[in-house]
Amino acid sequence: MMTERLSLNAAEWRAVRSSLSLKPLLKREALVMAGEVCRHVAFVEQGCLRCFYHSDGKEITAHFQVEGQFSTDYQSLTTQTPTNRTIEAVEPSMVVLMSYGQLQYLYRTVPALESFARAILEKALVDNQNRLASFLCDSPEERYLRLLKESPEVLRRVPQRLIASYLGITPEALSRIRNRIRTRRSA
Amino acid sequence: MMTERLSLNAAEWRAVRSSLSLKPLLKREALVMAGEVCRHVAFVEQGCLRCFYHSDGKEITAHFQVEGQFSTDYQSLTTQTPTNRTIEAVEPSMVVLMSYGQLQYLYRTVPALESFARAILEKALVDNQNRLASFLCDSPEERYLRLLKESPEVLRRVPQRLIASYLGITPEALSRIRNRIRTRRSA
Repeated sequence: MMTERLSLNAAEWRAVRSSLSLKPLLKREALVMAGEVCRHVAFVEQGCLRCFYHSDGKEITAHFQVEGQFSTDYQSLTTQTPTNRTIEAVEPSMVVLMSYGQLQYLYRTVPALESFARAILEKALVDNQNRLASFLCDSPEERYLRLLKESPEVLRRVPQRLIASYLGITPEALSRIRNRIRTRRSA
Repeated sequence: MMTERLSLNAAEWRAVRSSLSLKPLLKREALVMAGEVCRHVAFVEQGCLRCFYHSDGKEITAHFQVEGQFSTDYQSLTTQTPTNRTIEAVEPSMVVLMSYGQLQYLYRTVPALESFARAILEKALVDNQNRLASFLCDSPEERYLRLLKESPEVLRRVPQRLIASYLGITPEALSRIRNRIRTRRSA
């Protein structure tokens, strides 16, 4: 969720506002597909996006993004080379887009945006480091419990097979973890 | 390696320069230890740092940083709360430190630093996402080959047991992977 603040004067706000566009996404519609160049930063106004890799014919989920979060592929965006990931809507969604060119222009003309972007990037880096740490240090059950604690809305809204893919386990293993937790709680 | 450029006028450079300090680190000396608050950003002038988690009595390696790279714990730094990771020198090293307070002050007075920090953070995020992707999608052997291709200097300088920890495997499994590759190459 976005807690960073962006303070703009009227002229700056007009410049930022005029570079934004709204885009509705159907369920399973892609914002960007593996092989394409990512040309936008997206802010999730409503809905839920999923970012995933294609590996050995399987889809491997890297992240979910819900309302109030930003979504893009920074490697593809900042180098303008094809991405190796797909970002698509898990449910009907609405995103606010800003193009890479507009963003570069606004960085030069709206200094407050640099500082805002830095705060967003710091947070994204911390989230990503924590996700990596969870893969390095936690068991699948601990990863599930962490998701339950930190993003209960994702667990409610996203199909179980995608949750399993996010946790790096099979849907059957996820089912066993959920049963184990249920049994413990009712004991 | 740092390829981002920082353009400063003389007054800005004096302000930045006066907030930097050099710190030598002995082999295995910690820059920050789990449980402490991380108070600095470090730039590796010489040597190699390792960032690791403590999990079930084991040290689990998250990252290595060599000359030309930045090292800090962003979560601890930006929230000024205790870190859950240790950063220590793998070999005798020299780092350039800037405190969090000085960094915050300079962000306000040296606008070019915001833009520089944003570029550094974008790169750190991409590196971290690629490391996560490698854990999600690659086999241990593929992770080893990626490290060999992208950071051969780390493989040359860092003890095998730490490389194994970075790859998320045992030293014995690393040994088997290296033997397998050697046999294939000499076949």
